[in-house]
Amino acid sequence: MRPDFSKGLVPAVVQAEDTGKVLMVAYMDEVAWDKTRATGRAWFQSRERGLWEKGATSGNFMEVVEVRLDCDFDAVLLRVRAAGPACHTGAESCFFNEVG
Amino acid sequence: MRPDFSKGLVPAVVQAEDTGKVLMVAYMDEVAWDKTRATGRAWFQSRERGLWEKGATSGNFMEVVEVRLDCDFDAVLLRVRAAGPACHTGAESCFFNEVG
Repeated sequence: MRPDFSKGLVPAVVQAEDTGKVLMVAYMDEVAWDKTRATGRAWFQSRERGLWEKGATSGNFMEVVEVRLDCDFDAVLLRVRAAGPACHTGAESCFFNEVG
Repeated sequence: MRPDFSKGLVPAVVQAEDTGKVLMVAYMDEVAWDKTRATGRAWFQSRERGLWEKGATSGNFMEVVEVRLDCDFDAVLLRVRAAGPACHTGAESCFFNEVG
């Protein structure tokens, strides 16, 4: 079972396996998908960075515990164990901006 | 505080407020964002359907309890109370495809 990449990159929601917290959203292409599946760690693709492994810079790798696809195969849900903060700001989750 | 729509549609992750389950991913433009903020219910934008309110067809509206933006303002997290299944298939969550 694979995402449908025919329309381009597919969003991947990253959720902490223990707390259920949504940590970040990033994007996958086929290469990032295959790397994630092969290594058990989260890999993504972006226009700015190209192919990148989460944690390669920060050391905060993400161990993928569960992978799910949505009903039409154009979104990915990764349930992970994160070695540290998901956000480059040092926050546990990138979603730290609460809209009042 | 608003998402950055300068690069186009922004993904919105919908999470059940009570269980923490990730229910679906859809997209917002400025109009969908403003409608969501004004009504307290989830509105989205898609290439296929244009502007749509979640639940307008099914009756399963989503009451928005909390809105968050990520660190670079290009992803939205909606924490919601859903009146019924999030998925058009009748599943509670669209992410019912577990990848083995």
